[in-house]
Amino acid sequence: MAERKRVVIIGGGFGGLEAAKKLAKAPVEVLLLDRKNHHTFQPLLYQVATAALSPADIASPIRHILHKQANCRVALAHATAIDAARKVVVVEGGEIPYDWLILAAGATHSYFGRDDWEHLAPGLKSVEDATTIRTRLLLAFEDAEYEVGEEGRRAALTFAIVGGGPTGVELAGAIKEIAAKAIPADFRNIDTKTARVLLLQGGDRLLPGLDPSLGERAKKDLEKLGVEVMLNSRVTGVTEGGVTIGDEFVPARNVLWAAGVKANPIGRTLGAPLDRSGRVMVAPDLTVPGAPGVFVIGDMAAAEVEPGKPVPGVAPAAIQMGKHAAKLIAAEARGEVVPPDRRKFVYRDKGTLATIGRGRAVAQIGRLKFGGLLAWLLWACVHVLSLVNFRNRTAVLFNWAWQLFTFGRGARLITGDPKIPVAIPGPGPKPTLASFSRSPGS
Amino acid sequence: MAERKRVVIIGGGFGGLEAAKKLAKAPVEVLLLDRKNHHTFQPLLYQVATAALSPADIASPIRHILHKQANCRVALAHATAIDAARKVVVVEGGEIPYDWLILAAGATHSYFGRDDWEHLAPGLKSVEDATTIRTRLLLAFEDAEYEVGEEGRRAALTFAIVGGGPTGVELAGAIKEIAAKAIPADFRNIDTKTARVLLLQGGDRLLPGLDPSLGERAKKDLEKLGVEVMLNSRVTGVTEGGVTIGDEFVPARNVLWAAGVKANPIGRTLGAPLDRSGRVMVAPDLTVPGAPGVFVIGDMAAAEVEPGKPVPGVAPAAIQMGKHAAKLIAAEARGEVVPPDRRKFVYRDKGTLATIGRGRAVAQIGRLKFGGLLAWLLWACVHVLSLVNFRNRTAVLFNWAWQLFTFGRGARLITGDPKIPVAIPGPGPKPTLASFSRSPGS
Repeated sequence: MAERKRVVIIGGGFGGLEAAKKLAKAPVEVLLLDRKNHHTFQPLLYQVATAALSPADIASPIRHILHKQANCRVALAHATAIDAARKVVVVEGGEIPYDWLILAAGATHSYFGRDDWEHLAPGLKSVEDATTIRTRLLLAFEDAEYEVGEEGRRAALTFAIVGGGPTGVELAGAIKEIAAKAIPADFRNIDTKTARVLLLQGGDRLLPGLDPSLGERAKKDLEKLGVEVMLNSRVTGVTEGGVTIGDEFVPARNVLWAAGVKANPIGRTLGAPLDRSGRVMVAPDLTVPGAPGVFVIGDMAAAEVEPGKPVPGVAPAAIQMGKHAAKLIAAEARGEVVPPDRRKFVYRDKGTLATIGRGRAVAQIGRLKFGGLLAWLLWACVHVLSLVNFRNRTAVLFNWAWQLFTFGRGARLITGDPKIPVAIPGPGPKPTLASFSRSPGS
Repeated sequence: MAERKRVVIIGGGFGGLEAAKKLAKAPVEVLLLDRKNHHTFQPLLYQVATAALSPADIASPIRHILHKQANCRVALAHATAIDAARKVVVVEGGEIPYDWLILAAGATHSYFGRDDWEHLAPGLKSVEDATTIRTRLLLAFEDAEYEVGEEGRRAALTFAIVGGGPTGVELAGAIKEIAAKAIPADFRNIDTKTARVLLLQGGDRLLPGLDPSLGERAKKDLEKLGVEVMLNSRVTGVTEGGVTIGDEFVPARNVLWAAGVKANPIGRTLGAPLDRSGRVMVAPDLTVPGAPGVFVIGDMAAAEVEPGKPVPGVAPAAIQMGKHAAKLIAAEARGEVVPPDRRKFVYRDKGTLATIGRGRAVAQIGRLKFGGLLAWLLWACVHVLSLVNFRNRTAVLFNWAWQLFTFGRGARLITGDPKIPVAIPGPGPKPTLASFSRSPGS
């Protein structure tokens, strides 16, 4: 048997994983590279950040997902560049030649040129991001409990979320639910129900990817929960102490970033034109002009549904692109010629869902738009069924059931080695957990 | 009502938590301090380290566990010293006065004077320790998969566990099970079944706290699994590349420490005599001579069952001590006088269990000694029932059932930002994932 040609896939997200699977029967060998050993189900990452789920509930080893696929190997590796002329991927410490390359390395947070805000206002893209945010959120309540100054307490109990897309909406709803439902009984000195959750959106509506009526609906639902939705609010500054909205400074110990994404910078090394978000301008078949054998898919690809209308950066789009690239590569590997009209990638919009809180979501499926419990049930079903394996599905269902009945959040762990700036506030002569001597319980 | 007197408890482990609960009806106010926001169920920590359980399955917020107890407050704080003369606890940034103090801050790893080994051979006391070890273990197999040199591959697939007590035995069994059962199908270039697991014990038997026949039984069971048990093996050196046993150097990328513990160093600040492990020499009633109102319990207390026979450092002992201290404090708070003979702490040995692997354990209950499936079932029941709440119990049961039927480990996540030394071995001109071009699958 002649040596098989090689497909290298960079990234084990939705797109890369789908491409690998769809190449199972193709006469190629597949090598999937990822910096992480696990695929992360990003749509539920906010639930890890808000202590509802554990990382292992939504993440699975890529190697294990693909273990039955004989023509596929998985390697933990950090790809840093692509040399399209020589057809090699540069990884830390070496090079890997390819015949075809599927670039599916996803996106990261964009701070619109203010990268100094990154450590102040963490974003949510990885399991590590999620546990960092979880620790910060939980620590804020601990802070507030033993903070003696009213101002400091207010700041600790104020959570500002920058960005009114699905992630911002989901985070805001979940944080308000924690404060209002999950933890009030656990604290003695503070009323966690008074925590302020601000959702700051630069534009004039939430969920700009959806129909305006649904953005309106989401706003109303969030406000019913107690979230303060601030439209047309441009964030002009972030510090350790708070966030500046236009000219107004709002003290907030926690600022979370859900505002923008930019494509993985490895796309730059292709030498092809990029769009404003750093995505690679692909041909209609997802290949890259001037880079033979290279496909770019998912959040890294600037593809269009129709001229002027970009394919959205959502999981179903990445999956469809992965499937498409795999189909074309398989055909090429078999020596088939695919007519140009069938080479073109066609995006099928299966609808969009965004959840707001327990029993509340909005849905847009074709011309159908609706919200409330029905949308939430649909959201829940779609997400549970999309999880990669039975174990994750069962674990998520169990945790959701638990939460539904008790409002409890099962994963309230402060981990890592965070500063405990809390218990004893202020420098100088201490009010020493002052509140403790204030009002003995019972 | 006169102001209530105050009990400060340092540490939310088994002993501290039990003491707090038992003070619920006493006419005192209770303040429990811990550096972590969660109680950790340490007996199952090795299952987090070996990817069977998630941290949240065995840890719960202390604040939530005690939320219904009106006379109790919880604070996240790092106590650094005790000033017994002035009756204050020094915490970072301030002081907290007490009328009674229960010191229950537990123990940490002891490297017998070789603290430089700590980062080379991590121990297992916290959730963070467990996820660190998990990452190291999983990374070793990723390393081996793309390591081209036979020597390097051997070292990556060699796991040395120092210490043949319960933790060492449990870790050794679990690691061998991962290598032999959970992951073989996920790798292409290596046979993970060939991984070597060495259990190094300085003394002449395993489980020295139990009857010699059970140590022998554990050794046989481990050897049946494929663990290499090395008795009378003194570790004289640990480096990044391996471990030296006596004069012999064994290359091993992973060395784990389960050899010794020392009491939390805060005990020193009491000024009372300590034993060799840094535990406070307590009076028979667990108080500290010369430090009025102070009780020391759990792994920090050098208490005796009878002269010359120390109370073992196990969870039931800590719980019994917590109960005892609480009882005496409650009596004092009510102005009762407890006769000296009833002040004495009496340890009731309810038996000891150690698990070896799936379906295998050893048990010693009074004069009864047995091993095998029955011991394992008992071990499983006792541990599930001891978990602090229904949610943890269900989660652990679910994960165990999953593992029992599939051998799968649900939490195989490499997290943090570990070096990926792997995929491309060696510096210089790369064999570039050499193995990839060696034997195309299928």
